[in-house]
Amino acid sequence: MCFTDEVVEASGVVTPAPTGTTTGAGELFQLLRDGRARTRAELAASTGLARSTVTARVDALLASGLVGNAGEATSTGGRPPTRFRFDSAARVVLGADLGATHARLAVTDLAGAVLAEASEDLDIGLGPEPVLDRVVTLARELLTPWRSRLLAGIGVGLPGPVEHSSGRPINPPIMPGWDGFDVAGALSREFGTPTLVDNDVNVMALGEHFSHWRDTEHLMLVKVATGIGSGIISDGAIRRGAQGAAGDLGHVAVPGGGDVPCRCGNTGCLEAIASGAALAAALRSRGYDCVSSRDVVALARGGSVEAVQLLRGAGRDIGEVLSTAVSLLNPSVIVIGGALAAAGEHLLAGVREVVYRRSLPLATQHLRIVPSRSGERAGVIGAAVMVVERVLSPAEVDALVAAAR
Amino acid sequence: MCFTDEVVEASGVVTPAPTGTTTGAGELFQLLRDGRARTRAELAASTGLARSTVTARVDALLASGLVGNAGEATSTGGRPPTRFRFDSAARVVLGADLGATHARLAVTDLAGAVLAEASEDLDIGLGPEPVLDRVVTLARELLTPWRSRLLAGIGVGLPGPVEHSSGRPINPPIMPGWDGFDVAGALSREFGTPTLVDNDVNVMALGEHFSHWRDTEHLMLVKVATGIGSGIISDGAIRRGAQGAAGDLGHVAVPGGGDVPCRCGNTGCLEAIASGAALAAALRSRGYDCVSSRDVVALARGGSVEAVQLLRGAGRDIGEVLSTAVSLLNPSVIVIGGALAAAGEHLLAGVREVVYRRSLPLATQHLRIVPSRSGERAGVIGAAVMVVERVLSPAEVDALVAAAR
Repeated sequence: MCFTDEVVEASGVVTPAPTGTTTGAGELFQLLRDGRARTRAELAASTGLARSTVTARVDALLASGLVGNAGEATSTGGRPPTRFRFDSAARVVLGADLGATHARLAVTDLAGAVLAEASEDLDIGLGPEPVLDRVVTLARELLTPWRSRLLAGIGVGLPGPVEHSSGRPINPPIMPGWDGFDVAGALSREFGTPTLVDNDVNVMALGEHFSHWRDTEHLMLVKVATGIGSGIISDGAIRRGAQGAAGDLGHVAVPGGGDVPCRCGNTGCLEAIASGAALAAALRSRGYDCVSSRDVVALARGGSVEAVQLLRGAGRDIGEVLSTAVSLLNPSVIVIGGALAAAGEHLLAGVREVVYRRSLPLATQHLRIVPSRSGERAGVIGAAVMVVERVLSPAEVDALVAAAR
Repeated sequence: MCFTDEVVEASGVVTPAPTGTTTGAGELFQLLRDGRARTRAELAASTGLARSTVTARVDALLASGLVGNAGEATSTGGRPPTRFRFDSAARVVLGADLGATHARLAVTDLAGAVLAEASEDLDIGLGPEPVLDRVVTLARELLTPWRSRLLAGIGVGLPGPVEHSSGRPINPPIMPGWDGFDVAGALSREFGTPTLVDNDVNVMALGEHFSHWRDTEHLMLVKVATGIGSGIISDGAIRRGAQGAAGDLGHVAVPGGGDVPCRCGNTGCLEAIASGAALAAALRSRGYDCVSSRDVVALARGGSVEAVQLLRGAGRDIGEVLSTAVSLLNPSVIVIGGALAAAGEHLLAGVREVVYRRSLPLATQHLRIVPSRSGERAGVIGAAVMVVERVLSPAEVDALVAAAR
């Protein structure tokens, strides 16, 4: 079992590693993350570390399993030196993406590659205990074939605001009973491993970035489904803001949004006008049998002119708010995902129309507005990648190495 | 002279340091930036570096002057070991803040402390060559008493969009003749030292953050003057976005902004409605003799109800846009600066009224909206701090150390 200290004190918090000769193994390990095999001498040369320090740290990394023997290098006389390489199979990670009505889980290795996956319908409204019980059962089944590998951590995406530092939902509007619930603590105790929790759009942004846009430093992912939200990657990292509330597009006032009431208590919010729920309600009022974002998309695909017009209009409203986001953040890519984005070009065309009209040329000349490529898998991959990034950070590798001794 | 290679290839670009035994001195130096004196043995212990490596790197840092001898430590037998400390007086830095109608310059040490300062009226509209000639003259005068110290770099804030990577203004609306002008190159050639250029609000944000909010990770500085713009600090660093255009609040559409034409070609932009220029125009149309932001503030201070109402209304309009920024960025502090903010509580009250009404509780419960404390000095301090941060980064210290050998 690894990281038990952390589990006790509250998951998601980096425990300072005990000082000692192997402290700094985490720093050395960053060099090896590129997957290239290196000898002790090469590691000493490129870091300036004392040869004895390199040997101690490599030994510690070998003991932890994070680094493996990668055969011998060519000898320049004498016994050929051993080479070492990051072993991404050393641990597994569990990612869980919980939506309003679904759960998707994946087991990945430490390189973020998906080893196993499962999903099923699950109503978040059942409350934290029944939902997490089901997640635990699904996770145990999924992990069974991988039980020979240590579980390095769990990442969870939830459909509402989350205080990332504590792993608790904060006043989540569509998650009755979840306010302040210690999601991270519950899963950490169950699996004896740290758990990181974030909102669904942040993990989607991480997943989309990891899978398709790794070289893009400034990316914004917008999820348009029952609600509307965004995850912001700036200078290569997710930006959560002071309380983890960054990216909350849904309750921004739309210019010309008028006095449409929103469930947040304000009026004219983007979510009240352009979300899947808003469009479904508009179509119902026109006599259609339409409940969800999926129904809206199905109607548009079936040729309903009204559905297509509403989607285009929603795209324009989203574009009004995104043009402000473009002015503020100057991203180079905006990815549009979520169930309503599955309608294809209708929504996207509206977004593009307004953003390119409203934003200044300097910010739009290289801006790309694209549909999500990871689709439904973005969240679960992002949840796992969030854990991988944490687990392989210098401080965590130091802690892991200390625990493995 | 230092950094000459950089000057040739384009200032602001980090030149990879030549590899060799002193590469890595920059990394070691980061430990010493806290100002605490340490022995070679202490440096070796806390880094795991070979003793010979520490000695080579300390020698290189001593030769560069960045580190100085700080006396002897207590001996545990034998010759007492020497201690070393960061010498913030090793170099000076020049900061220049150019506004629409003023220039302010400061010489600071490597800890950002102001050693000398000057300012005068200077019309940016004269064009780059006359303005920069004058800046060079002022800078030479200001630097004269410090000529025994090497100039580590120059930081410049300009009142318009700047491509930070190249140090050139990009389509700056109030800077005729400056579009694409190589400001960084011109000053770098003149002084034989690298020059970093950014827009005025980013350097104000850096200055305000450095001077008063160093422990605040998420801060937004809003400048309300002839124009309106902002600088965004997220996770402790300024975020410039893909083209350096981040923070451009001025051309965001205000909800309810209507069809007031803006100089950018759009309508209803924040700057067209709530800037000092817009308020001065509104007061002129009511018969007042009012040209600048300062005139607006003077009228409000003199008791003009119309000026006070306009300021309050401008605060509300700015608040509408800032409530979106709060939803997107979740800052913990918003600093309001610029000439119009000098009107005191009128503008700020309008901002607060709307932001606290419009934004979600999670984002506003710990949010502070405060007036600038650095005032007119924020920009010039920020311009210098931008250079200090660059010059003392590991890669730059490596380059500097290599050049000093």
